[in-house]
Amino acid sequence: MLSQFKFELKNIDKSSKARRGLITTAHGTIQTPVFMPVGTQGSVKSLSPNELVDTGSQIILGNTYHLYLRPGTELLRQAGGLHKFANWQKPMLTDSGGYQVFSLSGLRKIHDDGVRFQSHIDGSYHDFTPENVMEMQRLIGADIIMAFDECPPHDADENYVAQSNDTTVKWAQRCKKAWQENPPEYGYDQALFGIVQGGTFEGLRRQSAQQLVELDLPGYSIGGLSVGEPAPAMYAMTEVATEILPKDKPRYLMGVGKPENLVEAVNLGVDMFDCVMPTRNGRKGQAFVWQGTLNLKNAKFTDDFTPIDEQCRCYACKNFSRAYMRHLLRANELFVMRLISLHNLQFYHDLMAAMREAIEKNEFSQWRKSFYGNRWKVKS
Amino acid sequence: MLSQFKFELKNIDKSSKARRGLITTAHGTIQTPVFMPVGTQGSVKSLSPNELVDTGSQIILGNTYHLYLRPGTELLRQAGGLHKFANWQKPMLTDSGGYQVFSLSGLRKIHDDGVRFQSHIDGSYHDFTPENVMEMQRLIGADIIMAFDECPPHDADENYVAQSNDTTVKWAQRCKKAWQENPPEYGYDQALFGIVQGGTFEGLRRQSAQQLVELDLPGYSIGGLSVGEPAPAMYAMTEVATEILPKDKPRYLMGVGKPENLVEAVNLGVDMFDCVMPTRNGRKGQAFVWQGTLNLKNAKFTDDFTPIDEQCRCYACKNFSRAYMRHLLRANELFVMRLISLHNLQFYHDLMAAMREAIEKNEFSQWRKSFYGNRWKVKS
Repeated sequence: MLSQFKFELKNIDKSSKARRGLITTAHGTIQTPVFMPVGTQGSVKSLSPNELVDTGSQIILGNTYHLYLRPGTELLRQAGGLHKFANWQKPMLTDSGGYQVFSLSGLRKIHDDGVRFQSHIDGSYHDFTPENVMEMQRLIGADIIMAFDECPPHDADENYVAQSNDTTVKWAQRCKKAWQENPPEYGYDQALFGIVQGGTFEGLRRQSAQQLVELDLPGYSIGGLSVGEPAPAMYAMTEVATEILPKDKPRYLMGVGKPENLVEAVNLGVDMFDCVMPTRNGRKGQAFVWQGTLNLKNAKFTDDFTPIDEQCRCYACKNFSRAYMRHLLRANELFVMRLISLHNLQFYHDLMAAMREAIEKNEFSQWRKSFYGNRWKVKS
Repeated sequence: MLSQFKFELKNIDKSSKARRGLITTAHGTIQTPVFMPVGTQGSVKSLSPNELVDTGSQIILGNTYHLYLRPGTELLRQAGGLHKFANWQKPMLTDSGGYQVFSLSGLRKIHDDGVRFQSHIDGSYHDFTPENVMEMQRLIGADIIMAFDECPPHDADENYVAQSNDTTVKWAQRCKKAWQENPPEYGYDQALFGIVQGGTFEGLRRQSAQQLVELDLPGYSIGGLSVGEPAPAMYAMTEVATEILPKDKPRYLMGVGKPENLVEAVNLGVDMFDCVMPTRNGRKGQAFVWQGTLNLKNAKFTDDFTPIDEQCRCYACKNFSRAYMRHLLRANELFVMRLISLHNLQFYHDLMAAMREAIEKNEFSQWRKSFYGNRWKVKS
């Protein structure tokens, strides 16, 4: 069934667990490890598809919860899917909606079939079930889709998380069934990933990973992390999962994160990442560079006529100064949101490219040391 | 002194007063009649310099009042002028600050030297005089600059406007002196335009135009219109001015306007225009087309998968549907502000190009009829 989806493991770094791979989809290939910009509502905020491609974006993400509420999956079906609607020609991934239902929406209640919740937009009531979430993602038409999961709060106790794990696995089974029984809407295959949950409980993480692996899905996500727990806990739980997940399937750490989080998770064998940080923080004036971060609103940039990063090849760095961007930030000009978002995505993609190269050369551990050797030389 | 600034009148349409001309500046040439996008604070809102050029922008405008307050003219001097600061390589024009001082700022008081006012940003006190406004524009470094004027409110009585005219002419004399005595900061010439005032009083408009013409400046603006008066009054006052202004100097109707305003003013012999309408209205979802305007927030566009205008060559029309833009407007996505601003500027520039072509062929009157023949076929 998944003739168009393929994951090839090209190399495992000899000095770490870092992996170099290649994902093939109907909309093109993805070199891993990869960072995926987030296009929540069918648009990576402020940026054009051309600019995304220019910065090195290989695949973008859409949020099922948001797209279901607006513009609705029936409209996306009429449009021929989200690729056509948003004019995005490369691969696309949608999440399950689970995280948003459990974090964004109003009153929610888990029932036998799924979960009832209130829209964060207008308070209207909606039901998400494994079956209808699969149908939504079938109509959105991403190349990689997620099984519907329950995402427990980060302070949930062990009993709650154990019960939640059972729910997530049962829902994943139902998702797999729905996915197998309903042919893709647009003629190309959609690869279903299961989402490992288990909070920060090592035993429950292990159990969740093991139970999902039994479903033999095309790939696996690690969910419910980067939700408030300390970084060491996130890394420990990631390692528990990557040790169990099959080597020949891609692993996607959802919603992560800072540049150093990406380096650590690649070191543990993660292949895919998404996070709003480069775009959201960029819109607020934070620029990512190899040496740390710059808050371009800071007064010290008032008369700094150098680019964000002299070495960077992005449109912002090739054409505009820190002083100009600081002025635009103070003046609330929209254009600067584009410039810093663009630069930050270029930085994230360059970071992933540097890691890919280091893995190819079996020099990831050395590369990682030099990355931290340069890190936190600036902070503003 | 103005070796780099030149206006050549190429043709006066045989069927109207419409003029086809060419302005030469140190930063390139401008085909007239021309529409100038407004970059209030050193950025045409949401758009990049590349995109401005791609839509056919030949010259952009900066606002002296805003740039003086933020980032300040001393910073612009350090940057080497606004062209370099904002990375805009083509011609640029700055206004006098008069309109903003009299419309945007808090308490203001005209005194012997100029005007004292409070910043709209923080209430701080500032003085604008003909001399310091010339110095500000010298440091901003636009190719075309404006004499400091008093812009009376649109409901001012004849006595007030008569007195105000005297002030504006005296200030223009002082501006000319300051401009002649101080060499350009960046080595290229800046052409000084005087601003015709006079409210909607025909006699005062005539007097203002005559007095300014005596100063023999490189060009003339028509100010204080499109400030709330009915369109026929605007056209009548424009005609009073264009009948007096010398044929061999460019005429610039400030802050105008709607597509039909541009057509009427070109018909009366105006060469240059600026207005925030294509970008400001675009950000709110209004798209300009040959047949009228479209409010893309309208529910009727929900499943309209056609572009704003099938015939338009802009990036928005080549790549995205009305349905997608309506979705992005409802979802408050920044990207759609870019798309509609871009389309609207393309439309305004295409409109000017069509008028230029009609004037070259001496067919302006006929073209104008066909323009109105197509107009108001759509309204949403």
